[in-house]
Amino acid sequence: MLRSHTCGELRLSDVTKTVTLCGWVQTGRDLGGLTFVDLRDRYGVTQLSFNMDTDAAMCEKGRQLGREFVVQAKGIVVERSNKNKTIPTGEIEIVVNELVILNKAITPPFTIEDQTNGGDELRMKYRYLDLRRQSVRKNLELRHRLAIETRNYLDLQHFLEVETPVLIKSTPEGARDFVVPSRMNQGQFYALPQSPQTFKQLLMVSGFDRYYQIVKCFRDEDLRADRQPEFTQIDCEMSFVEQEDILNTFEGLINHLFKTVKGIEIPPMQRMTYADAMTYYGNDKPDTRFEMRFVELNALVKGQNFKVFDEAELVVAICAKGAADYTRKQLDELTDFVKRPQIGATGLVYARYAADGSLKSSVDKFYNEAELSKWANACAAQSGDLILILAGQADKTRKAMSELRLEMGTRLGLRNKNVFSCLWVLDFPLLEWNEGDTNLLASLAGRWIAKHHPFTAPKPEDIALLDTNPGAVRANAYDMVINGVEVGGGSIRIYNKNLQAKMFNTLGFSNEEAQKQFGFLMNAFEFGAPPHGGIAFGFDRLCSLFGGADSIRDFIAFPKNNAGRDMMIESPSEISEEQLHELKLVIRADTPKASE
Amino acid sequence: MLRSHTCGELRLSDVTKTVTLCGWVQTGRDLGGLTFVDLRDRYGVTQLSFNMDTDAAMCEKGRQLGREFVVQAKGIVVERSNKNKTIPTGEIEIVVNELVILNKAITPPFTIEDQTNGGDELRMKYRYLDLRRQSVRKNLELRHRLAIETRNYLDLQHFLEVETPVLIKSTPEGARDFVVPSRMNQGQFYALPQSPQTFKQLLMVSGFDRYYQIVKCFRDEDLRADRQPEFTQIDCEMSFVEQEDILNTFEGLINHLFKTVKGIEIPPMQRMTYADAMTYYGNDKPDTRFEMRFVELNALVKGQNFKVFDEAELVVAICAKGAADYTRKQLDELTDFVKRPQIGATGLVYARYAADGSLKSSVDKFYNEAELSKWANACAAQSGDLILILAGQADKTRKAMSELRLEMGTRLGLRNKNVFSCLWVLDFPLLEWNEGDTNLLASLAGRWIAKHHPFTAPKPEDIALLDTNPGAVRANAYDMVINGVEVGGGSIRIYNKNLQAKMFNTLGFSNEEAQKQFGFLMNAFEFGAPPHGGIAFGFDRLCSLFGGADSIRDFIAFPKNNAGRDMMIESPSEISEEQLHELKLVIRADTPKASE
Repeated sequence: MLRSHTCGELRLSDVTKTVTLCGWVQTGRDLGGLTFVDLRDRYGVTQLSFNMDTDAAMCEKGRQLGREFVVQAKGIVVERSNKNKTIPTGEIEIVVNELVILNKAITPPFTIEDQTNGGDELRMKYRYLDLRRQSVRKNLELRHRLAIETRNYLDLQHFLEVETPVLIKSTPEGARDFVVPSRMNQGQFYALPQSPQTFKQLLMVSGFDRYYQIVKCFRDEDLRADRQPEFTQIDCEMSFVEQEDILNTFEGLINHLFKTVKGIEIPPMQRMTYADAMTYYGNDKPDTRFEMRFVELNALVKGQNFKVFDEAELVVAICAKGAADYTRKQLDELTDFVKRPQIGATGLVYARYAADGSLKSSVDKFYNEAELSKWANACAAQSGDLILILAGQADKTRKAMSELRLEMGTRLGLRNKNVFSCLWVLDFPLLEWNEGDTNLLASLAGRWIAKHHPFTAPKPEDIALLDTNPGAVRANAYDMVINGVEVGGGSIRIYNKNLQAKMFNTLGFSNEEAQKQFGFLMNAFEFGAPPHGGIAFGFDRLCSLFGGADSIRDFIAFPKNNAGRDMMIESPSEISEEQLHELKLVIRADTPKASE
Repeated sequence: MLRSHTCGELRLSDVTKTVTLCGWVQTGRDLGGLTFVDLRDRYGVTQLSFNMDTDAAMCEKGRQLGREFVVQAKGIVVERSNKNKTIPTGEIEIVVNELVILNKAITPPFTIEDQTNGGDELRMKYRYLDLRRQSVRKNLELRHRLAIETRNYLDLQHFLEVETPVLIKSTPEGARDFVVPSRMNQGQFYALPQSPQTFKQLLMVSGFDRYYQIVKCFRDEDLRADRQPEFTQIDCEMSFVEQEDILNTFEGLINHLFKTVKGIEIPPMQRMTYADAMTYYGNDKPDTRFEMRFVELNALVKGQNFKVFDEAELVVAICAKGAADYTRKQLDELTDFVKRPQIGATGLVYARYAADGSLKSSVDKFYNEAELSKWANACAAQSGDLILILAGQADKTRKAMSELRLEMGTRLGLRNKNVFSCLWVLDFPLLEWNEGDTNLLASLAGRWIAKHHPFTAPKPEDIALLDTNPGAVRANAYDMVINGVEVGGGSIRIYNKNLQAKMFNTLGFSNEEAQKQFGFLMNAFEFGAPPHGGIAFGFDRLCSLFGGADSIRDFIAFPKNNAGRDMMIESPSEISEEQLHELKLVIRADTPKASE
C-alpha cells in the first residue's frame, strides 16, 4: 500500500507515530513561517503541516501543492495547538518529512465543496469530479448501505438471489422496450427487460419459493423529469402466499431499513384502498404525513344559483388548519397556482373561519354564514382554519385538488423530509383505458392496458366483470407509498393458463400473439404453477427518499440527463459503418412528415 | 401463508402437531390399503400418508394426485413405522385430513430427478422444469452463497458497491459490443458494457478508493462452447495500491470463499510469470494440481539424423509418472489424440523407463540407451515412468504439449475436482499482434491489440520498448488461475494522460479517435488521478469451479445456447415494423458476397 493510514483515522492516541497518507489536496494555507495543507480521501481530512524554520525545502514543496493534487506524505503525528473540534482528526496534524506528488491536477471547472458553484450541466459532464464532493459520495454510501441491509433482511427470510437475463425478448404490451440487434441471428433482436417479471414467475414455477434480485431495468420513455432510461429495482417474488403475507414481509423490509440505516422505528403502516385514496386525496400515492382529506360538498352547495358549483360534477374542499389569516396576496398566489396549465382549475373558492368565529367566503354573494357553517362542519373546520374549494369535472378536479393539497402541505410545513409516513394502497383497478399515451406504441391506443402488468390477478369476485365492465375489475395489486412517493408496487399473479389467456384477450392480444410472445409462461402454468405474488421497489427512488432528496439523480453514480444522454461519456453516439454493416442495419433517412 | 411449515423442517419432535404443507407431488405409492405421496418443495421432501381404512374418501383423493401436481395438505405429524434415514424428514409423515389441489400438472417432458432422461435441448426449452431438479437448484443456491460471501468479505475490506451504467458508449477496440439504438437520439446507439472498466477507473479518480460490483457484462462473440453473450463479473478496483496489495487482497477473497462456502483451507497461492507458464506448461493458465512440467530436449536430441527432431524449432518432453506400462493401444490413442486437427501435432515420440530399469523408445533407430538415459535424466524420470515427446514449431508444439499434458493428467487421475490448486500468473505481455481474430472487427486486423485492455500499465522498466519492440513490453497484469481455469484477471492501470495517449497510439488510434472515444478518461486524468489497479473475476466460472462442474451453463438460471439463443423464451426474435420504424432502422436485405 502507498499509505499506512487513511486520512480519516488518526487521533491523539497516534501521536509520535510515523505515518504515510495519500489523498487529494483540499486546501492549502500559507501563513508565512507555517504552511498547512488539508489532505482529503474518502475517509476524511487530515492536516499536513510544514514549518519554514525546521525544514525550509519541505515547506517550499508544501507551498507548491495545488488544489486536487494527489500526494503521498510521510511524517510524524503531532498534537495540534489549534484544534479543530468539527472533524474527528482535528486534534492532530502530520509534520511532513517526505512528500511525493503522485499526480498534478489542473483547476477543476467547479469547486469540490458541498455547496459547489458548478451548474447541473457542468457537474454531469465532469461527474467524476462531482463525485468527489462529500455530499454526493455520502448519497452513494447510503445506497451501498441500503443494498446491504436489503440483502441481509431478505437472506434471513430465505430469499434466494437469482440473476435473470438482460438480453430477453421484446414484448411491447406496455412501455417501449430498448432493443439489441443480434449479429448472430440477423434481422432479429433481443430486448432489455423492463422488469424480470416473467422470469421471476418462472422461478416460482420452478419451486424456488422465494426470489430476490437488485437488478437494472430499462424503459425507453419520452423526456420526463427525474426518470432514467435505466433504473434499479429490488425485485422479489414468493410462493404459497396471499396478499397479506406479502404486505407483512415487505413492511418488515422497510421497517428493517429504517431501523438499521436511519435508526428510526416506524409505526405500523396505514392501509387504504385505491378508491379511498382517489376519493380522499385525489391521488393513488397520497402523502400521508398530513391529513387534510378531501371533503365532497356537492350535497351542500347545489341550487344556490352559483353556476360554477351547480354545473360541476364535483365540488370538493380541503381544510387548511390555521390558515385563516392568509392574506389576499397569498390567496391570489393559490388561485394562480391552481390555474397553471399543468393543474388546470378555472378558479379557487375559499372560506375563512376567522379567529373570532366569523365565516366569510369568496362566494358570499351566493352562500350566507349559516350555509358556510355547514361547509365548516363537513370539513371539521375550527376557527382559524381556511377552507379551499375546487369544482368541475370529477377526475380533473380531484387531480387539481391533490396538487393544491400538497402545495398547502408544503406551505404549512407539514412535509418534513425527516418524518416518514408509510402507506399501503390496495385494490388497484386491473385495467386502464389507453387514450393514446405517447409513452406507448401508437398501436396500443384505444385499448385496455394493464394498470400494473398483464400477469396481475384480478380479485376472484371481480373476474366475471372482465367480460361486462373491464374498467371496474379490481386487482390483487398494491403499492407502497412513503411521503407521497410510490416506492414499490406488486401483485398476486395469475397462475392459471386459462385466466392468463383471458387476460391477454382482454388486452387485445389474439391467441396467436399471446402464444408467440408469452407462450413459454402459459405453457409453464400447465406443469404445476404454485400460487405466487411479489413486489418490486424502485431502488433509486428509495435511496433518494432515505437521503431526504427530491431527485434520484444524485443517488446514481453515473446518471443520464432527461434526454437519456450520458453527458460525461457522450453517449449515445454514432457507431461505425463497419458495425452497422455487420448488424445488417441501415439508418433510414428522415422523410418529410407528409409522406410517412 | 398457505402453509404452516415447509417440506424440509418437520422432525420427530413435531409429532402430534397439526400442520399444513404445500408443494409438488414427487412420487406416489399406492399400496392398496395405504397410499404414500412424497411432497417436495425447495426445502425438502415430506411423506404424506393416506389410509383406506380410516378415511377412504381422502385416500381416494390422494390416489388421484399426479406427478408435479401442486397441493396443499393439512394433517397430523406422526412417527413413521418404516423410517427413511436418508432424508432429514424421514422419521415422520403427515396423516392427511384435508387436501387441496392448487394446480394440476401435465406430464413433464423429462423426469424431475437428478439423473434426468431429458437431453440438453429439451431441458433448455423447459428450463423452468429443469430448475426443479435438486442438482440444478443446488448450483444456484451455491451461486447465491458465493455472492453473499463475496460481498461480506469486500464489505469488511471497505469496498463500496457502486452500480455503473449498462447503457454506455461503443468503443470497439477489442471484442464486439452489443449496441442499442436510441429512439430519442436517432441514428445514435448506446452499447452494452464488456466490463465497467472506464467507470471503475473514474470512481478511483473520484476518490471512492475501493469499489466493487457483481455485474452483468456483454460480449458479442462468435459461437464458442460454454461462452455466454451475457456473463457476470465480480468487478473490483482499489486506489493507492501496488500489484502486491491487489494480489494479497484478492487471494484473501478466494481464501474466504473456500473457507466459508466449502470449508476448505487452501495453502498460500503459487505465483508464476507468464513466461514460465508458457515455458513449463505451454499455457497461460496451467493446471497446477499436478507437476508434469515441460522439459526442453533440443540440446540432447539434435544431430542424430532423426529428421523430425533435427528440423524442429522445439523438442519438448513431459514425464508421465508410473505410465511405463502403457500398452501399444494406449500409446496409439495418445498419438491419435495429438494428431487431431485441433491439436495439430504430426506425431508422438515416447520412451519407456521400464520397471526393470531398461529404456526403450519409439525412435530406437536413432537413439541408443545411453542417449535415452540422458533424456530420462533431464526429465527426472524414474523406472516405471513414460516420457512423451513432441517436436515442431515452438508455439504450436507447446500448445499441443499442453493439451497432451492435460490429457495425461486426466488419464492418471491427477485432476480431482475436489482438489483446488490456485495460482497467480504474473507479468503478462502488454500487447499481442492480431493476425485477424474473427471475434474482432476486421478493421483491427494487422494491428497490435491490448492483451488485457488498453488501460493496463506497462512495467515502468519496459516503457521504452513501446517504440522499439512493443511485443516485448510486459504489463503489470495478473491472472488468477484455479485448476487450469482462468477465474480472474486484472492489472495496475495507467493513470497518466500522456502514457494513456501513447498506449492508444501504439494500438493504432489516431489522437482524434482516442479523444473521441476515451477523451473523458484522459481528461479525468488531468484532474488528479490516483495510482490504482483492480481485478475482475468471472463469477459464472467461479461458481462452476466451486460446484465441481465443467460447464457454466448449469450455474446460470436462464442460460443461452452456443448460438446466443434463449431456447425457452425464443429470443432473439423479430420485432414489429412499428418498432423498427420508430427507431428509424431498416434491415438490409442479404446481398451476394461478390457485391459486398
